Amino acid sequence: MNITFAPRLSVLDVEEGQTLAPRVPMDGLMPCVASDAGDGTVLMIGWMNAEALRLTIATGEAHHFSRTRQAVWHKGATSGLVQRVVEIRIDDDQDALWLAVEVAESGASCHVGYRSCFYRAVPFGDRAGAPLRFVEAAKRFDPVAVYGDAPNPTVL
Amino acid sequence: MNITFAPRLSVLDVEEGQTLAPRVPMDGLMPCVASDAGDGTVLMIGWMNAEALRLTIATGEAHHFSRTRQAVWHKGATSGLVQRVVEIRIDDDQDALWLAVEVAESGASCHVGYRSCFYRAVPFGDRAGAPLRFVEAAKRFDPVAVYGDAPNPTVL
Repeated sequence: MNITFAPRLSVLDVEEGQTLAPRVPMDGLMPCVASDAGDGTVLMIGWMNAEALRLTIATGEAHHFSRTRQAVWHKGATSGLVQRVVEIRIDDDQDALWLAVEVAESGASCHVGYRSCFYRAVPFGDRAGAPLRFVEAAKRFDPVAVYGDAPNPTVL
Repeated sequence: MNITFAPRLSVLDVEEGQTLAPRVPMDGLMPCVASDAGDGTVLMIGWMNAEALRLTIATGEAHHFSRTRQAVWHKGATSGLVQRVVEIRIDDDQDALWLAVEVAESGASCHVGYRSCFYRAVPFGDRAGAPLRFVEAAKRFDPVAVYGDAPNPTVL
């Protein structure tokens, strides 16, 4: 499928138009938030290059760009935890994306095993400096069983 | 208030620990998604540097880093549309943030005047290539009335 992006001719076109003209400013990548289409929980923030965006539009399944592996990545190819796209949104200046998704199987999106990558809350205000608080009661899957000895994408 | 970040000593600590040890990999910035604490609508993706994160933690109001202005920005300082933080979450490898917020006044977060910066849907699958679809019926405010002739942050 040939999915084309338009040139960015004016701020008015980009902000108020109906033409897809994305901008990929940070090392050629756009941030992409994926949230659960059912309850709105933010599952992850990934990154898309132009190819990942085209593949997501074409297939209706989330593709991201792995900064660790420097490659486009069909989310769920290894784990089976595919993110089926319910809606794709693009922001005002067309340099960020939001996917509302449904996740297959256990419903998890985090390589650590949790449903959401955002499984810890940061205390703030009067509680600033307190330990991070885990907000998910348990992991949805065992990452060792799913990923084996594949390299962990977390970079120190 | 002195808010300190811990060193990143191991993947286990970063992923499974209760210590805030953020990483700011992209030009010193972390992506930060803000969503409505009530219904989960994604309002914007902003960027935080260490100072913006500290100010957000200290004050309970969202601070971002403006890439256009190259300065920390108290969201709502001009418009009055402050994002009051209900929860701060950090992701598995601590390089991305999620704020669940309540927005003052009109409830809008987008400089174009819409509630969400993500006011357009991108057709996909069988409808790939169709025009972007506006998903908000109307703007919440008139950006000219609110921002006057301040420079538009959208970069072509």
